[in-house]
Formats: sequence, structure tokens, C-alpha cells
Amino acid sequence: MIRACIFDVFGTLVDWRASIAREAQSLLAPLGIALNWGEFADAWRQQYQPAMDEVRSGRIPFSRLDDLHRRNLDVILKAYGIEHLEEATRRDLNLAWHRLDAWPDVADGLRAIRQKCRVAPCSNGNISLLVDLSRRNGFQWDAILGAEVARAYKPSAVVYLTAADAFDCAPEETLMVAAHSSDLAAAAAAGLRTAFVARPDEKGPGLGETTPLTPVEFSVQSIVELAERL
Amino acid sequence: MIRACIFDVFGTLVDWRASIAREAQSLLAPLGIALNWGEFADAWRQQYQPAMDEVRSGRIPFSRLDDLHRRNLDVILKAYGIEHLEEATRRDLNLAWHRLDAWPDVADGLRAIRQKCRVAPCSNGNISLLVDLSRRNGFQWDAILGAEVARAYKPSAVVYLTAADAFDCAPEETLMVAAHSSDLAAAAAAGLRTAFVARPDEKGPGLGETTPLTPVEFSVQSIVELAERL
Repeated sequence: MIRACIFDVFGTLVDWRASIAREAQSLLAPLGIALNWGEFADAWRQQYQPAMDEVRSGRIPFSRLDDLHRRNLDVILKAYGIEHLEEATRRDLNLAWHRLDAWPDVADGLRAIRQKCRVAPCSNGNISLLVDLSRRNGFQWDAILGAEVARAYKPSAVVYLTAADAFDCAPEETLMVAAHSSDLAAAAAAGLRTAFVARPDEKGPGLGETTPLTPVEFSVQSIVELAERL
Repeated sequence: MIRACIFDVFGTLVDWRASIAREAQSLLAPLGIALNWGEFADAWRQQYQPAMDEVRSGRIPFSRLDDLHRRNLDVILKAYGIEHLEEATRRDLNLAWHRLDAWPDVADGLRAIRQKCRVAPCSNGNISLLVDLSRRNGFQWDAILGAEVARAYKPSAVVYLTAADAFDCAPEETLMVAAHSSDLAAAAAAGLRTAFVARPDEKGPGLGETTPLTPVEFSVQSIVELAERL
């Protein structure tokens, strides 16, 4: 019996790429900066796993994702030759990750799933980031779980297990929902059940995962479909 | 400017004494046990601070409140000479703390405050306990903060500061709301702003605090009144 559903957020619930491209353009274009905004979003996101590896490996202590995003932003602004940006602009641009838009099925699907079981994000994003995304997009949770509560980053098993445990659920009573096979493989290895949601345009048109590359219990096209099948 | 309100729960938002008395009676009276149920609730609650002191002092590692409540329950059942209770009954009775009823002003007041700022419980209760209380009573939060996230118990300053920080708020942007002067004094010492809510019947008719014994910024009769004054 599934008693809790926990959700990856970036890519699975929100369209980070189009949103970051839009936010970057809206802040930087008025300063006379012209870029391929989608590629800028990709470049920023490419720094994401290496930055978390610094934490996962123990080379740096646990840091909230907002702080890692900021380190990564400074790296890519330098790579793009945009080094004259004021501190206030850098700070505002970094908060673009708090202003991402959801895929259209998510708010309705979460509301339906919350009628059936406990729900929380299980994201590498920090609590305040998830609070802002949830208010913006009408996500209603029972709790905010994930990296900041576990003080570790996915795919470390402790992140999934801490989330299940916070809900008083055994791993096998907990369903991890994600658009990324690697996230689901790690959750399954920790004993959780898994659901794959296809987000074919996550990394740009046609560049997201369309089918899971790892065994899963559910494979769906939307959170609404998952709600119907639970 | 207040950007976040964080709330004590037992006594401030929910009537633990009448609820525990009711739950204990409903589970134990059918077994032929006759007690003064209000006094039984008091006896169980009296074990609360000493059990947390074991954690605060470092004599035992951080434990969730559900586990402390269970230790305390076994102590008082022994004191009452009720030692024949089955394990399933003890477990169910311990979960009485997940089935407490709110004071009548709370759900409306929280809803109004959430229109103005971020809201979370900052309780010594564990996450799953707060999830159950929130679902039962229609509390809607931005996140569940408090002891389990900070891995420490109030009145340790780290609990208040971890809650403010999780919301990206400075202590002085964060309002701690409680019916207990000791909780508010500790929050103020950590740099937070404070609001006292009178719960005159918390510990039995006329036995709760009616006025704050420490300086506070707001002193109100209900969460609805606090919402109006913010």
C-alpha cells in the first residue's frame, strides 16, 4: 500500500529550462546583453551536478542549493564574459530558480494525489526555494522534505529514506516520482517504489526522457494520470 | 517587517488536555479501566519536559517526540498500575497525540496569516505528528519546521533560528507565536519577534496563561485577532 508520494521537482514538476531562459532574458536583456537564453539556462544547469558532487564527496559541507546555484552563476557569468553585473542583479538572477513555472498538469494532479496519501517534494532544492515554487504554482504539500531536511543530496539513499521516515512510512510504502531514471534507480535501490513521469521537453524540445531506463512500477505521461492510477 | 510566522502547537493551536483525556477514555474505558482522564492527560504531559531534557542535555541522542511520548506512556501506565495493556493498544494510545483537536479560531486565523507571510509550525512535535494534526484540523502550512528539522528541542535557540533560516528570514523578520511565556522568552533571546496568544483553559479550566510574563510585541486572544493585527 502506498501511504506517501514524494516528488522530484526540477524537470518533473517545473519547467526549469524555459523559466530560467525567460528570467535571465528579462533581467539581462535590458542591460544590453544578448545571449541564446536557452543555452544560458543549459550552461547554468550543467554546473549543478558537479557542485553537488563537492557536497556528496565531503569536500565541502552541506550547503543549500541556493548557495550552490550562486557559485555556479558566478562561474558561468565569467565564462560568458559577463563580469560587470552588480551584486543586486546577481542575487536577483540567482532567485530565478524560485520563479519557475510548473508543467500544466501538476497542481491538479498533486491535489488529487493528496486526497489519497501524504505528499511532499523530495528535491535537492532548499526549503525556501520550494516554498516559493509552491506558492507560485499552487502546489499544496503536507511537508517540505528532501535535501535540506536530510542534509545530503540525492541520489544519496539517506535523502529518500529520511523523507519516508519523516512521514512514518516504510520505504516500500513510499512512492518516488521523477522524470529522471537515475533518480528512480537510486530510490528503488533504497527500497522505495517508483513512478516515472515523461517530460519529453525538459531539456529543450524533444530532449527529455520519454521512457524509463530502469524498472519502475508506474510509467505515466502526467501527474494527473498518476493520480488516476494510484 | 514580518515575513514569516512560526507557531508553537501543543496548547497554542491544539487543546492537548481535553483531546488526550477523550482519546485515553475511548481506548481504555472499554477495557474496564476507570480513571480521572484529565489527570491522566496531565500525568502524561508532566513527563514531557523531563524526557526532552534527556535530549537537551545530550544524555540521549535526538529522538522524535513520538518516541519520547511512548517512553513516557510506559512510565505512567506503570505508575497507574495499568501494566497489562497489549502492545497494539499502547501504540494506538501513543498516537492519541496525532488526534488532538484545534482551538476553534485556529484554522481561519492561519489561513488569514498565510495570505500575509510564510507560516510553519515550530513545535517539538515530529513531522508526521504535525502532518496528522494539520490534516485533522485543516491547518495549511508552507513547510513543517521545528524540532525534527533542527534535530534539537525548544527552547534551544537553534530550533527558532533554523526555522527562520529555512524561510530565508532574519530572526527579526520572524514572529514566534505561542501561549507560553517561556517559549516566547527563548525566541526573543534568539532575536525573533514574539506574539502571545492567551489559552486560559490549556491545562484545565482556568489553568492556562492569560497574560504574558515576558515582554512581547503582540498579545492576543486568538489567532484570528493576530491575523487582524499583523
